Amino acid sequence: MARWQPETTERLIVAAVDLFGEQGYDATTVAQIAERAGVTKSTFFRHFSDKRELLVAGQETLSRLLAEGIADAPANASPLQAVAAGLERASGAMGPTNRELGPRLKAAVEASTELQERDALKSVGLAAAMAAALLARGVPDPTAHLAAELGVLAFKRGFTQWIDGDRSDDRGFAHHALTALRELHAATTSLG
Amino acid sequence: MARWQPETTERLIVAAVDLFGEQGYDATTVAQIAERAGVTKSTFFRHFSDKRELLVAGQETLSRLLAEGIADAPANASPLQAVAAGLERASGAMGPTNRELGPRLKAAVEASTELQERDALKSVGLAAAMAAALLARGVPDPTAHLAAELGVLAFKRGFTQWIDGDRSDDRGFAHHALTALRELHAATTSLG
Repeated sequence: MARWQPETTERLIVAAVDLFGEQGYDATTVAQIAERAGVTKSTFFRHFSDKRELLVAGQETLSRLLAEGIADAPANASPLQAVAAGLERASGAMGPTNRELGPRLKAAVEASTELQERDALKSVGLAAAMAAALLARGVPDPTAHLAAELGVLAFKRGFTQWIDGDRSDDRGFAHHALTALRELHAATTSLG
Repeated sequence: MARWQPETTERLIVAAVDLFGEQGYDATTVAQIAERAGVTKSTFFRHFSDKRELLVAGQETLSRLLAEGIADAPANASPLQAVAAGLERASGAMGPTNRELGPRLKAAVEASTELQERDALKSVGLAAAMAAALLARGVPDPTAHLAAELGVLAFKRGFTQWIDGDRSDDRGFAHHALTALRELHAATTSLG
């Protein structure tokens, strides 16, 4: 059996996003994705359980990095400073391919209710990972859950800024996510 | 054709939640749900597009009520006061049957990834409805989105309190949702 190759994962994701864009998510089969990526169907299934999982590839990695960044933040860091550390750590998994694929990925999700549902559950998973890491630091409830939700909002807003922004702006995902987090924190004072 | 009856909707939901609890979501068919509710399959499909939609029944009603409550809040209401008005309005759709079915519904969702996905998308829909209503009031972004997320968190936390709490406590859903909203607002001062 061939060694598991990270580049195969990336090739499968690129092939899938291209096909979803060309012919729609529903009309795209695993066989077509595998063929476009130049691998067999059984290789596909060694990497993903089904085509939907392709689009949330990296959720476990992101959750782990967010939680690790929060856990490793200095003991005197505030809840949002810990969330910021989590976002910085997670940005290690957000490279040029993520940015490049971002707009097509977003279009595929917007065109499919099934993908919207999977994407929504992904956000719930990221929030849960951050909340658990904050609670483990001794942040009380509901502050931990609130900070985790702000982290998810900052992640999503930062991602949109990053993929929609000027391509000559080479500041990474972390810059945009941390800017969004600061803006959200500032907005808490105008809630009422 | 029979007149569309609200009580049929409720009977179908009760039958479905009971069957999901007895034999699991995946093993339950539309035919079984219809039979348990004492209606035909075609009656089922006049009320719901599939069995999954049963569990998010009321999402459109809730979104509408949340948005109307926010729109009708006094002009000088703060963003969170408007959200509170939305939650109060939405509580009109949260009656004894919702409370009675709550624990079984929660168990069915926890046991099925498919239902978790649909449930996550429901939260996204409620947040979007509240954010749009707040933006229409002139609340700027990102305050509008932040207030909407607090509204969703308050809705979910209040719902859990309401269905898990002492049954002799007859304060309605609104009491629990507004308490949760106040707690979340208080927690914003300890974020960072």
